[in-house]
Amino acid sequence: MSKELEQTNRTTISRHSERASYDRGTAYAILDEGMVAHVGFDAGDGVIVIPMTYARLGDEVVLHGAVASRWLSCFATGRHVSVCVTLLDGLVLAQSAFSHSMNYRSVVVFGEATLVTDNEKKGVAFKAFVEHLIPGRWEDSRQPDDKEIEATTVLSVLISEASVKIRSGPPADAAKDLGLGYWTGVIPLGVTAGAPIPDPLMEEDRIIPEYAASYSRGEGV
Amino acid sequence: MSKELEQTNRTTISRHSERASYDRGTAYAILDEGMVAHVGFDAGDGVIVIPMTYARLGDEVVLHGAVASRWLSCFATGRHVSVCVTLLDGLVLAQSAFSHSMNYRSVVVFGEATLVTDNEKKGVAFKAFVEHLIPGRWEDSRQPDDKEIEATTVLSVLISEASVKIRSGPPADAAKDLGLGYWTGVIPLGVTAGAPIPDPLMEEDRIIPEYAASYSRGEGV
Repeated sequence: MSKELEQTNRTTISRHSERASYDRGTAYAILDEGMVAHVGFDAGDGVIVIPMTYARLGDEVVLHGAVASRWLSCFATGRHVSVCVTLLDGLVLAQSAFSHSMNYRSVVVFGEATLVTDNEKKGVAFKAFVEHLIPGRWEDSRQPDDKEIEATTVLSVLISEASVKIRSGPPADAAKDLGLGYWTGVIPLGVTAGAPIPDPLMEEDRIIPEYAASYSRGEGV
Repeated sequence: MSKELEQTNRTTISRHSERASYDRGTAYAILDEGMVAHVGFDAGDGVIVIPMTYARLGDEVVLHGAVASRWLSCFATGRHVSVCVTLLDGLVLAQSAFSHSMNYRSVVVFGEATLVTDNEKKGVAFKAFVEHLIPGRWEDSRQPDDKEIEATTVLSVLISEASVKIRSGPPADAAKDLGLGYWTGVIPLGVTAGAPIPDPLMEEDRIIPEYAASYSRGEGV
């Protein structure tokens, strides 16, 4: 697999092209940090975008989530999708309203989504969904039986035609605006985990596992 | 405008329908808390999903962002889009891997996106983009001149055909799994702002404005 992502007309970033990247490692780091993918496809009555759980399995994105049964048939033979994962890193406050921006890292993948039907691969994907979101949890939960694996919809998309877009750093005001006297800079943003909330149905008080008590995502703010 | 969103075949949530809502007020609260919209459309070479800045203006979503010039023409006469905003509220840890889930609130809007060409309305949208992300900032920055408004692409989508999906609360294990003895519960997630980072090009040290120093989004964790 090439270290560079496949650059096509639709992955070529023409607006703020200085923010574009086609580096596979950069894309993978973003996919590995993200928690939700927004997946767009056309099942016959117009484009729909839905949030889905996902994980990266090598050079594939595997998807899991709200695929209603009425859409499933359209994936059986492959269906074009666009998968987007976006991480928000900050709000960029400039002198001019026009130059306000956000710091972010995003990946857009284009490809054919196909249903994963092999139960062994579905099991591997299942583990990846859990470990992607909560590293350490897979071994500390009841693993799925055959019936649960059968009942789970998994889609796979090869990561080939894709692009990355990143904005980072301070505002970029025009020189003529630098003396206007407003406060300018960046408000960093990150995902934070709060104290775990025990399930009221848990049969006895148990110690919160370390992977939950110290949960964090990304670099923090 | 009806208090209920328009329920059609494609907005009818068939998977976990108990999580669905068609209440306009609920949708608006999610849109007002979100920071990035994922917008899907087909400009002629397959569906693409891109992250965009947005704001709600009454019963419209106005969008702003990475609309490359090669796509602009397709919006001039209206183009079907799907706009999705998702808020992540927590990770749900159940006894069984199968019952792991996420707490979230999401809105999907279907509609025709059209280019806003009226400069007065573009100015209103411009203010909304800034105030939606950073309440208080609009009056504390240089407002756009005619040239900047001309250079800004604004799309508008009427919020009519749309749906809301919400999962909240503790895990929902099958009764047979409740005695398995794993820790179960919810790890709450939220967006957190760090200490503002002053722009190195700011000409003198200025006091960080209160709306930046105390920035928060959502209920926190």
